[in-house]
Amino acid sequence: MKKINLKEKFSLFKDYWNPKIIGVLNDQDIKIAKVKGEFVWHNHEKEDELFLIIKGLLKIEFNDKIVELNEGEMLIVPKGVEHKPVADKEVWLLLFEPSSTKHTGEVISELTVKKFENI
Amino acid sequence: MKKINLKEKFSLFKDYWNPKIIGVLNDQDIKIAKVKGEFVWHNHEKEDELFLIIKGLLKIEFNDKIVELNEGEMLIVPKGVEHKPVADKEVWLLLFEPSSTKHTGEVISELTVKKFENI
Repeated sequence: MKKINLKEKFSLFKDYWNPKIIGVLNDQDIKIAKVKGEFVWHNHEKEDELFLIIKGLLKIEFNDKIVELNEGEMLIVPKGVEHKPVADKEVWLLLFEPSSTKHTGEVISELTVKKFENI
Repeated sequence: MKKINLKEKFSLFKDYWNPKIIGVLNDQDIKIAKVKGEFVWHNHEKEDELFLIIKGLLKIEFNDKIVELNEGEMLIVPKGVEHKPVADKEVWLLLFEPSSTKHTGEVISELTVKKFENI
């Protein structure tokens, strides 16, 4: 049992769209990611997904709207809902999702990470 | 699907040791709480518990040590581990835990909240 410092964890990597696992509890992962640019349209058939913004402005595009999330804001994307995160500048995210969650759902793209790294 | 602003949610209540549900996903609650003073010794038989510090300094006492958590730090307390949170000054917390988690485990105290409020 060791405390986890978010800023320190974010200092350990620079790559975008590649979430790292920083903690696991009750079969759920706590992941952090740096993102910039456009991700791919996807959904998660069985898992709701939580985005919490640690730094920056993240836009999440949906079929019928765009939600803008600033630092200190979060959004729960229900399972099955198509979405595409977009970041004009670098954004730091915290994600909370079941360990079973696939990065890009059933979509395979060059951005797809098959196995998340623990840091 | 509506975005959740942490600061705004914290402005909605003042009571201590009374976590409020601000989001639910995959049978897990996202709760926030303001705490000050000493909580009770307890453990959660079946659930790991995550504390993320949004503001202030939280001490969590264990049988063999004390962990100090500052803003931007988190700790996962594994199921079954006895702990007692202590805050000398007001602390703002974010909690991730299964919706089944009881406030004070099997311990009943005057601080025990039986049903968490949604805000």
